[in-house]
Amino acid sequence: MDADQLTVTRLLDRAADLFPDRVVVSGAERITYTDFTARVHRLAHVLDRLGVRRGQRVATLAWNGHRHLELYFAVPSSGAVLHTVNLRLTGGQIGEILRHAGDVVVFVDPDQAGLLAQALRDAPDVRSVVVLGDELPPEAGEGWLLYDRLLGDAPDTPFPMPELAETEPAATCYSSATTGRPKPVVYSHRAIYLHSMALAMADTWALSEADTVLPVVPMFHVNAWGIPFAAVWLGAGIVLPGPAPSPEDLARLIVEERVTFGAAVPTVWFGVLEHLRGIPLPDLRMLVSGGAPLPPALLGLADELDVPLVHSYGMTESTPLVLVGRTKSHLRGGPDRRLRQGTLVPGLRMSVRDESGAEVPRDGATPGELWLRGPWVAEGYGDDPRSATAFVDGWYRTGDVVNVDAEGYVKIVDRIADLVKSGGEWISTVDLENALMDHPAVVSACVVGVPHPRWTERPVAVIVPAAEVTDDELRAHLVARFPKWWLPDDFVRVAAVPLTSVGKFDKRAVRAMYPVAGR
Amino acid sequence: MDADQLTVTRLLDRAADLFPDRVVVSGAERITYTDFTARVHRLAHVLDRLGVRRGQRVATLAWNGHRHLELYFAVPSSGAVLHTVNLRLTGGQIGEILRHAGDVVVFVDPDQAGLLAQALRDAPDVRSVVVLGDELPPEAGEGWLLYDRLLGDAPDTPFPMPELAETEPAATCYSSATTGRPKPVVYSHRAIYLHSMALAMADTWALSEADTVLPVVPMFHVNAWGIPFAAVWLGAGIVLPGPAPSPEDLARLIVEERVTFGAAVPTVWFGVLEHLRGIPLPDLRMLVSGGAPLPPALLGLADELDVPLVHSYGMTESTPLVLVGRTKSHLRGGPDRRLRQGTLVPGLRMSVRDESGAEVPRDGATPGELWLRGPWVAEGYGDDPRSATAFVDGWYRTGDVVNVDAEGYVKIVDRIADLVKSGGEWISTVDLENALMDHPAVVSACVVGVPHPRWTERPVAVIVPAAEVTDDELRAHLVARFPKWWLPDDFVRVAAVPLTSVGKFDKRAVRAMYPVAGR
Repeated sequence: MDADQLTVTRLLDRAADLFPDRVVVSGAERITYTDFTARVHRLAHVLDRLGVRRGQRVATLAWNGHRHLELYFAVPSSGAVLHTVNLRLTGGQIGEILRHAGDVVVFVDPDQAGLLAQALRDAPDVRSVVVLGDELPPEAGEGWLLYDRLLGDAPDTPFPMPELAETEPAATCYSSATTGRPKPVVYSHRAIYLHSMALAMADTWALSEADTVLPVVPMFHVNAWGIPFAAVWLGAGIVLPGPAPSPEDLARLIVEERVTFGAAVPTVWFGVLEHLRGIPLPDLRMLVSGGAPLPPALLGLADELDVPLVHSYGMTESTPLVLVGRTKSHLRGGPDRRLRQGTLVPGLRMSVRDESGAEVPRDGATPGELWLRGPWVAEGYGDDPRSATAFVDGWYRTGDVVNVDAEGYVKIVDRIADLVKSGGEWISTVDLENALMDHPAVVSACVVGVPHPRWTERPVAVIVPAAEVTDDELRAHLVARFPKWWLPDDFVRVAAVPLTSVGKFDKRAVRAMYPVAGR
Repeated sequence: MDADQLTVTRLLDRAADLFPDRVVVSGAERITYTDFTARVHRLAHVLDRLGVRRGQRVATLAWNGHRHLELYFAVPSSGAVLHTVNLRLTGGQIGEILRHAGDVVVFVDPDQAGLLAQALRDAPDVRSVVVLGDELPPEAGEGWLLYDRLLGDAPDTPFPMPELAETEPAATCYSSATTGRPKPVVYSHRAIYLHSMALAMADTWALSEADTVLPVVPMFHVNAWGIPFAAVWLGAGIVLPGPAPSPEDLARLIVEERVTFGAAVPTVWFGVLEHLRGIPLPDLRMLVSGGAPLPPALLGLADELDVPLVHSYGMTESTPLVLVGRTKSHLRGGPDRRLRQGTLVPGLRMSVRDESGAEVPRDGATPGELWLRGPWVAEGYGDDPRSATAFVDGWYRTGDVVNVDAEGYVKIVDRIADLVKSGGEWISTVDLENALMDHPAVVSACVVGVPHPRWTERPVAVIVPAAEVTDDELRAHLVARFPKWWLPDDFVRVAAVPLTSVGKFDKRAVRAMYPVAGR
């Protein structure tokens, strides 16, 4: 039994075998699993012709589309390593990552050609660039190749996929790292395989052949949360919206393609749900909101529209699924825990520890840092020296401060780095932000700690107002919910909160903006 | 990620952590997961005190009960190997198996003490016998110990479970082997872990914390089909019916405990369903029928009672799940395939080959032998020389003749050894048996091939009649469904068809009964 290896190759053939006519919808194209699987084999021939060898890195700079999905399977199955690059980074950042990863080939969407051309100045090892389409964009560099032409020229015979060990690397992502340079996380074939099984378990997302999945989450974000690997394996329908879809596009796809399962960050769901108002959605069984805490207003909107929204939590370092905000069967009808991040997915272990390393009580209040381990949790960042602080005795220190209630529901209180330490006590910036965003006159709110001579740090709030609102009104709104010393010392009004490349508040930038001199 | 090992130990703690008050119902007892987990740790202390060391075999001769479930977790988690022995074997057979396995301790239900006492004459290496209860039965041998007393005396502290490699053996079963001596199959920790994940997948049995499972299948049959390991991991309620439950007992448990999922052989479900007639079962979501082909009459009865019955197929060598007779979403409302054994569970590979080794077409007709491989399919029988014929190039040859339709649904036609070869053509004894059992005057029918000077072999039927029926009437019943040359040459009426220790027709015994001389 144990000789059989858990590899991405094993996830590929089943759909063509059992669900040959099920389709991958990709923009205006519809591709059956029979054709998809044949194209993956052609692509493996192409990689071989391009001289890609076992263990070498192949980068993608692309949106969610069927060609990107083909790369998801052909690159690891042929023994190379899929490196999905975040196209919201700058050319300079991308170049640095390509160089660090040692990518030998880059596959790029036509609209990202200009960005890649910039990046390549810093990445001399890239031997080939392939544009995902049939026409070279004006920004294309010399010698760039066309994906469709290469595939058309490739043999129409199955590629002899190598027998791989499950511990070989299959994919890599660079953690966005709100502080410091991006850190590489490497996913083994085994981790991706086990994570795919986990996504199909009834108590997590229950992915099934009966699903039509819409991964709105970009395929350059932790493998679109692992959904493409599981969905192809199971033979589910897949809907890939293509470049920069609007909320209207997504709502239309959900209705027209009878989507059963979707996954995106909360800001996307806010927009999409507004476009689904009043439309019956009998097929929809789960929308996953992740990548950021679930805003109470979004859950309220979903409840109002009778859309089944489930919060989930994970990170680049955990492939990513860690917590699912599913209500346990014996708690149905009880107090609502859906705004907590959820309970631990079967297969992982967690530990919540105070500064001395002791496990904190599960009382729903005492904060501690979340430590994780398991078969899809990283044990290090390649050869990055920062591994030594983030990984201890086989555990990954998430840097997230949480509390756990008696039922095992975890709530993220803050990032350790973002907590405000005032007068020896901790203040959660996330709780303050959520409360501020509950105020009708506030669109967006970001709270950071700034140095204070007496209290060490004090919170200040940066808000994007929707209407006129005074500091006193905001304070009155908060004082009902928090101790007085939690209230921000200042409210700064801005047009937009600066965001990181993955759409989170860039608290480093916000702190840098705030004039601390003279305090 | 890859350093984290997939072990039974990892399946243990989650229930106490997330579902502390969920119960295991065992006869008249109800034990919470908090208590269950504490008892498993006490039992690990007991095993240590009994001198059980890593890799040693610990046998059980027991019905489905909470003590047996405690052994399922304590034995592998502490590094020893759980060896469940079929209590329907004779004392001599059990002795041979205990000796072959080298079991050092045997845990026995009180009502099996006499059987074990007989068996021990042939098993000199057994050092200790522990009776699962608090009172020694009269048949107990000298020095036999009591489980409840040992547990009561054990420390009430967590046992320091060793860090095991996932490839270490966790459990072993002896394949029933209708021909020849029992053959040992060894399950690694990894195989049991992955099989547990597979049982929880939405497209298989979808086991969940929301379930209350009733494994009627004995815990000495391929680990009760793996259900106990998965159910404890997920935190499902478990109902263990205890010694030799009657159909009425089982029906009562289903109703009173609000069972959602059950698993048993078809003969059991026939009896149970009759007792569920007219009773609303809003909680019941799946009854699995396995261990034998699904009789059409049973499916008809289930449909009549609106009970969701699903056929599944597996074997000792595959931990056991291989095929699930689930209707794919796009086939709902189409032709009924539920009497086929089903489609391949995600994670395994299959190949269906003719005598030359070539893959047969998937036309729903052409027969071939089913070959299997995957992370929970055996690659050999311990050191048994029969491994060489059953396992080829990493594949397990099941010995089952099947056909596969265009949708991938497999139908078992026969055992290779049971097929009748008449005039160069194959006759399926299973098809004839099913057709005969459809006749109202036939309770049970077993068809075997007997030597024939002209046709090589010819089929003869051994039937258990329910009423008077002539050979001509039986022939008339069959001739509408099969070619004439398929019809049995003879119909022998018996009071009962001899069965093997696992309740299947003992075709070897039937063939031996039939007088071939003079034909």
